[in-house]
Amino acid sequence: MKFFDKTLRIQTNKSIEILNITSQISQLVQESEIEKGTTIVYSPHTTTALIINENEPGLVKDIEGAIKDLIPWGKIYAHNAIDNNAASHIVSSFLGNSLNLIISKGNLELGTWQSIFFVELDGSRPRKVLVRIVGE
Amino acid sequence: MKFFDKTLRIQTNKSIEILNITSQISQLVQESEIEKGTTIVYSPHTTTALIINENEPGLVKDIEGAIKDLIPWGKIYAHNAIDNNAASHIVSSFLGNSLNLIISKGNLELGTWQSIFFVELDGSRPRKVLVRIVGE
Amino acid sequence: MKFFDKTLRIQTNKSIEILNITSQISQLVQESEIEKGTTIVYSPHTTTALIINENEPGLVKDIEGAIKDLIPWGKIYAHNAIDNNAASHIVSSFLGNSLNLIISKGNLELGTWQSIFFVELDGSRPRKVLVRIVGE
Repeated sequence: MKFFDKTLRIQTNKSIEILNITSQISQLVQESEIEKGTTIVYSPHTTTALIINENEPGLVKDIEGAIKDLIPWGKIYAHNAIDNNAASHIVSSFLGNSLNLIISKGNLELGTWQSIFFVELDGSRPRKVLVRIVGE
Repeated sequence: MKFFDKTLRIQTNKSIEILNITSQISQLVQESEIEKGTTIVYSPHTTTALIINENEPGLVKDIEGAIKDLIPWGKIYAHNAIDNNAASHIVSSFLGNSLNLIISKGNLELGTWQSIFFVELDGSRPRKVLVRIVGE
Repeated sequence: MKFFDKTLRIQTNKSIEILNITSQISQLVQESEIEKGTTIVYSPHTTTALIINENEPGLVKDIEGAIKDLIPWGKIYAHNAIDNNAASHIVSSFLGNSLNLIISKGNLELGTWQSIFFVELDGSRPRKVLVRIVGE
């Protein structure tokens, strides 16, 4: 088994922003030269998430809207004593901060309509995404 | 390390439907003859999900109900210009489209009350579930 | 590749309780003597979850509050005929019951603000968390 590790650097530009990182992840799979394996895509932050969905600009806006509607953003939280971003933390745990993907024949096994998105929930900030590819 | 790959084919019959696929996944673990390993169960769609929960018909109905209550289904979304299923996409990202399971002594390590469910959010449709088992 | 398995035993004390288990998981990584690998942290229950977030007492309270606000706890569910805990099951599927973590240089790759939390949703109870570490 071979291990391949890389860190993606992402600069977000809005407080809530959903960024398509599929091509960067696919390129790392090519670089790894791993033909058969699995990938962990992992965000080391507590106010971001990683999701898989369709890359359609209207839908991306709808997901951003649903995030804001689901968790009350302006509420007074206990965490406000430290930082005014409790809603960002809460959404992060509901969406999840890592993905597991299958690699076959040297490529990510994504469905026809699937793209990989980094979800900024408390931007703008510089962010990192850890990519570990394991296989042969 | 051994790799074993199989694709399950599922025909859903309702717009929102939660289907127990535990026995199909368990059977693939038997077929793989892998004694110790991990499984990725992965849905390549953007309007479905995979969850683990208790196989109790009342509860399954309650989860279907909660899905509909949590994300407004009839709202006018930006994605409506393309397809009238934004809520299905949104719920998919909140539930997640893959599972990671442990295999020990040739069996899935599921808890007493745990079953594996495929969640249709925009049916009825023919669907696929990718199963990769890695181990020895 | 080496496999290392351990079961953590946790006694919860409240109906909803978010417990920091980072040091226990980190210690198992040390014990495993695996330098490079991945960990599945898996809850075999259907009314618990596992999340990663910041270990700040106010935020932990906010997440507990958001869980109760998001899914109506006192509603009459179909599952009530069996057990009065449908909301606990529903939240479990939205948060997820497993985590995938990267191990590098013999340590968990957690971000600066990341801790691992076991989420009790129907306590108090004795609970288990399965930890499988795979690597070399």
